[in-house]
Amino acid sequence: MSDTLPSTQPAERILLGPGPSPVPHRVLRALGAPTLGHLDPQYLGFMDDTCAMLRTVFQTKNALTFPVSGTGMAGMECCAVNLIEPGDEVIVGINGVFGTRMKDVMERCGATVHGLETTWGETFTLEQLKAALDAHPKAKLVGIVHAETSTGAHQPLEGFADLVHARGALLLVDAVTSLGGHELKVDAWGIDAIYSGTQKCLSCPPGLSPVSFGELALARMDARKAKVQSWYLDVSMLRKYYTGGGGARVYHHTAPINMTYALREALIMVLEEGLDTRIARHAAMHQRLRAGLEPLGLRYIPTRSLHSLNCVAIPEGVDDAGGRKRLLQDYGIEIGGGLGPMAGKAWRIGLMGHGATVRNVDLVLAALREILKR
Amino acid sequence: MSDTLPSTQPAERILLGPGPSPVPHRVLRALGAPTLGHLDPQYLGFMDDTCAMLRTVFQTKNALTFPVSGTGMAGMECCAVNLIEPGDEVIVGINGVFGTRMKDVMERCGATVHGLETTWGETFTLEQLKAALDAHPKAKLVGIVHAETSTGAHQPLEGFADLVHARGALLLVDAVTSLGGHELKVDAWGIDAIYSGTQKCLSCPPGLSPVSFGELALARMDARKAKVQSWYLDVSMLRKYYTGGGGARVYHHTAPINMTYALREALIMVLEEGLDTRIARHAAMHQRLRAGLEPLGLRYIPTRSLHSLNCVAIPEGVDDAGGRKRLLQDYGIEIGGGLGPMAGKAWRIGLMGHGATVRNVDLVLAALREILKR
Repeated sequence: MSDTLPSTQPAERILLGPGPSPVPHRVLRALGAPTLGHLDPQYLGFMDDTCAMLRTVFQTKNALTFPVSGTGMAGMECCAVNLIEPGDEVIVGINGVFGTRMKDVMERCGATVHGLETTWGETFTLEQLKAALDAHPKAKLVGIVHAETSTGAHQPLEGFADLVHARGALLLVDAVTSLGGHELKVDAWGIDAIYSGTQKCLSCPPGLSPVSFGELALARMDARKAKVQSWYLDVSMLRKYYTGGGGARVYHHTAPINMTYALREALIMVLEEGLDTRIARHAAMHQRLRAGLEPLGLRYIPTRSLHSLNCVAIPEGVDDAGGRKRLLQDYGIEIGGGLGPMAGKAWRIGLMGHGATVRNVDLVLAALREILKR
Repeated sequence: MSDTLPSTQPAERILLGPGPSPVPHRVLRALGAPTLGHLDPQYLGFMDDTCAMLRTVFQTKNALTFPVSGTGMAGMECCAVNLIEPGDEVIVGINGVFGTRMKDVMERCGATVHGLETTWGETFTLEQLKAALDAHPKAKLVGIVHAETSTGAHQPLEGFADLVHARGALLLVDAVTSLGGHELKVDAWGIDAIYSGTQKCLSCPPGLSPVSFGELALARMDARKAKVQSWYLDVSMLRKYYTGGGGARVYHHTAPINMTYALREALIMVLEEGLDTRIARHAAMHQRLRAGLEPLGLRYIPTRSLHSLNCVAIPEGVDDAGGRKRLLQDYGIEIGGGLGPMAGKAWRIGLMGHGATVRNVDLVLAALREILKR
């Protein structure tokens, strides 16, 4: 009919922003495969495969590892609503947008949040964590961002869990922009709960948020007095759907079926490449990009940069929005602007998953050289 | 590599259960189109198109009409967390699984829920609603299920809003299994807030939950004293992303980009067919199925059946799981079993969206004739 819209034909962008990252054709094809019922035996098999591969990528044996039916922020909220009870004291590391959000999400769960703050772009030391734990001995949980998507800062996590566990608290980690692209060892590092996203280093479209909960987190949830405030994200029900327990699965909600196909396929591709190889590729592409950016006068903002996301200061006299618009229009390349206090001052260049290639690095450098000609 | 899994190749089922429904190839192709960034101008255009078409399908002028980034239950929770404050009294019609869940979700928001109950399969009259409002004069909201997916009951809604508004309360409606397949007039019927799903009569995969809020609902949200307990579903932030307001969009979360493509394409198909034609098709296919089921001894459980979902009692001596397994294995047809007290006693046959066709009706009748031979 003449008054309806034309079909959905998105442009083919090169996604080098803070996510989503470029999705391989193979994953898009899986995404567009015929829809199964959410209780179909074949679908349940795909879901089991997905959870098993997520355990490998998270480097954990945690039985309770599954994709939350929402984007990354739903994963953050899932961890918060299940692990926090009203009145709990918690400590949150705040050095960017996502630590700030974690505080907000936890306060909505009734927590008293003690912010451990540092300059945006910086990360936290073991000494700073220890001082926060000394100052707030009743804290029951410490939330920290492994990969701050707003600043590109990479937070080392080795040793954190020992300090946190010594006080009887739990360690919750935001790994939205690191899972599948950075070293991340849930079991070896003693992480109790973790959430991520599909649209970053896993190179799957957005729509699911992989999470994993360890034994201490399960015990905390089992001992809850208050009902979880979110029905949609209540792990006491979700675990009966995702892990069954002797085959006795209980229907909870209709999962995003086709998104599960895509995540399954994306994880197969991660394991085909090999996790270590993939992590090394992200490191190498970051080095290659960095070696090209700095001579262009694009200075890295974080002291310890992520490999997956490169946050650089926009040089004096260069127009933020105009530059990004030219990249998009002339090259079909998307990069990200700054968030919060960095709006207008920073560019964020992502090299994530399928996007972390020599050809993308060299192309974005060529394009930036062109844009920065004055 | 030898130790990775084979690619994701789902079987081609004929989905005649309670949802998901069969997805047209054209929608699957849109779903698998290249991923754009969530702030890309083209993507924002797709999102605006989607919201505009949802308004048409909901038959509303409500500016705040958008797809929540989660499945149907996320839409229910979105309405509850935004419209309810701790201590509020509410009335919920309970005649199946979804009314029962609505009570649970609202209690988690701190509401005192007065259940208006009737036998599963039955629906509520204006007199029953009036009596409930008389008994609970402080009720600030009435929640009711238009299409009870667990029983197949079709709740008439004309006149409900007048009674509810006369007491200063709001009317919230669950339209997960009716939107796009049943008559549903948000503005004409005075509905204040409504949620649905994509995987039923819209024939899009699951993953989004269309919602719409009217002026009274907006005023209620604007007057809130308590912060919305869910960050992910907080409409005070979501509305800045979805409706902008003079072009000033504010980033909230990364929306499920490719799911938006699929919903946009599915809505184009609804409008190409014409909403009235589509609703009439659902009615005609329901009549055709009913005319075939009853001679087979399959009695309808609800007094007023939905067109989109046909819930029938399993005859004495017929094995529930065995029958459904044969349908799946021999015919590739999925139908649904009973939920809650109807488990093992009912079959639910969906004729939704793309699935509501003569060929599916005649095939499922032929298959049931074969299965029921004794």
